[in-house]
Amino acid sequence: MSLDETSEKPHDRLARALAGDLDRVNDLIRERMASENAPRIPEVTAHLVEAGGKRLRPMLTLATARMCGYEGDHHLKLAATVEFLHTATLLHDDVVDESAQRRGRPTANLLWDNKSSVLVGDYLFARSFQLMTETGNMRVLGILSDAAAVIAEGEVLQMVAARDLATDEAVYLKVIRGKTAALFAAAAEVGGIVAGESREATDALRTYGDALGISFQIVDDLLDYGGDTAATGKNVGDDFRERKLTLPVIKAVALADAGERAFWIRTIEKGQQEEGDLERALYLLARHGTLETTRAEAIGWSGRAKQALGTLPAGDIRDMLIDLADYVVDRIR
Amino acid sequence: MSLDETSEKPHDRLARALAGDLDRVNDLIRERMASENAPRIPEVTAHLVEAGGKRLRPMLTLATARMCGYEGDHHLKLAATVEFLHTATLLHDDVVDESAQRRGRPTANLLWDNKSSVLVGDYLFARSFQLMTETGNMRVLGILSDAAAVIAEGEVLQMVAARDLATDEAVYLKVIRGKTAALFAAAAEVGGIVAGESREATDALRTYGDALGISFQIVDDLLDYGGDTAATGKNVGDDFRERKLTLPVIKAVALADAGERAFWIRTIEKGQQEEGDLERALYLLARHGTLETTRAEAIGWSGRAKQALGTLPAGDIRDMLIDLADYVVDRIR
Repeated sequence: MSLDETSEKPHDRLARALAGDLDRVNDLIRERMASENAPRIPEVTAHLVEAGGKRLRPMLTLATARMCGYEGDHHLKLAATVEFLHTATLLHDDVVDESAQRRGRPTANLLWDNKSSVLVGDYLFARSFQLMTETGNMRVLGILSDAAAVIAEGEVLQMVAARDLATDEAVYLKVIRGKTAALFAAAAEVGGIVAGESREATDALRTYGDALGISFQIVDDLLDYGGDTAATGKNVGDDFRERKLTLPVIKAVALADAGERAFWIRTIEKGQQEEGDLERALYLLARHGTLETTRAEAIGWSGRAKQALGTLPAGDIRDMLIDLADYVVDRIR
Repeated sequence: MSLDETSEKPHDRLARALAGDLDRVNDLIRERMASENAPRIPEVTAHLVEAGGKRLRPMLTLATARMCGYEGDHHLKLAATVEFLHTATLLHDDVVDESAQRRGRPTANLLWDNKSSVLVGDYLFARSFQLMTETGNMRVLGILSDAAAVIAEGEVLQMVAARDLATDEAVYLKVIRGKTAALFAAAAEVGGIVAGESREATDALRTYGDALGISFQIVDDLLDYGGDTAATGKNVGDDFRERKLTLPVIKAVALADAGERAFWIRTIEKGQQEEGDLERALYLLARHGTLETTRAEAIGWSGRAKQALGTLPAGDIRDMLIDLADYVVDRIR
């Protein structure tokens, strides 16, 4: 392996290995987001789909299908399905969060309006169901429609639980499964299913995607309390200021004495934040070691992801998927 | 037929004939809108689902399945699917329209917030796809996912076209197909498909639902310019004040001279409305006879709906579906 190859990020190596398939998926995405009747639709979706996302989710489908020796083309439709589902949730998330920026660009709800984001999101949902239906594979349809329900349920749960100190680690896990891991898991699993893999193998792929997604989201939440602003594009403490209960704080709340509990109630539940509160929050996380224990959990989930791949066909793709699980936690090592 | 029966509205007679099935669909709806994880979901959906809607769309599925002699229970899942799709679009419509009332009750976005309406709508979409997937019938899945795409596309088109005087009758037809007729058509068609009917028969059912839905929506738009406020729950001229281009105005714009055109540009496109403008609009519709020509179109579509049923199994249910098509236009006779 050359120095170039080792320094290249695993998702870039995957993108290179799957370049032919990815091109065809991108063509399919462009073709299916078109609308003869309503040109507003491709305007809005192109803004988001072309915005240079990493295509991580569709790549999981392409990678697992190829790893399992699949030679057909249903994986292309499923990869596009997964990206449409993801894009639809981004459009609706930006409305729900009243976001003004995503990936450093103005959001669709800011450029057009909330109406366009809601309705174009609905259009992409419907398109994703049309695409998956075209594969004619009932197991795949069940998995992807279940994932869509878990995603929506997780979003509602997050909305209700985010500022509620009663939110415990089990609820947090449900929220991030909905937010991230459910689609990772489905994306990985359906690649194996179209390839005709055994139930054991597709369960292993599902476990990989689920654990990878959970690890990915925990790392994201951890970096909010100590990441490098330049690398993450977020400022330290954004979640605290937005009163989002994430794992480091949930763990600290569980260990809080009466005075600390009053602090969390005031700052998160009531949102009465003052100068110096972020520093006090960081001090409390450090005092209870919850940045460390959160970090250990992220690494644990990354390990579970790698372990799940153990019984799957060895080769370049499997190596890259293992490296991807390592890379997710590299940001916090 | 007793006097009671003839004076009863056709959808009430259908509801009585299908009472057993309707009860089972209502049970299924309640069961599937539950969420162990996010109790906000059944709160919001119950508000809408229990609000005493006529269940017209699910009833079309139940009725066509029964008319075609179906004895299984897939039609129950499909009827619930159709109602979930409809409810999801209502939730999102109220966000898009910033509505405060629906069927005389406060809307979900007012009682909770826009976020809840968007996310719970997404949950119902996902649930509807889970339900239809459980039937394992690929043709049904194709029809319902196509309908979902037409609905979303129609909504986007309506948003863009509503205040644009270039909107012609062809665009109007696309909008109301998305808004109303696509789901009516799919609801009627899938009932025949699960019953194993021939392609000719299911095409006829689709034509019935499509024409019924178009007639229904044209009547709605017509009543806005001359209906009985007590019967419609709308005030005369609401669409004019909200600058919605509907068929009577589209027809009048097509026949407008220069001065009239300037009037429509000012009131609809620019939204600069003054005292007396509604009266002038009504005068122009009368002058060009467009309330009459719109009325004739609604009656024509109702006739097409009835005609489509000609080759389908004769009996009570078919009679009620024919009466339903008559009833839709009874409001404007």
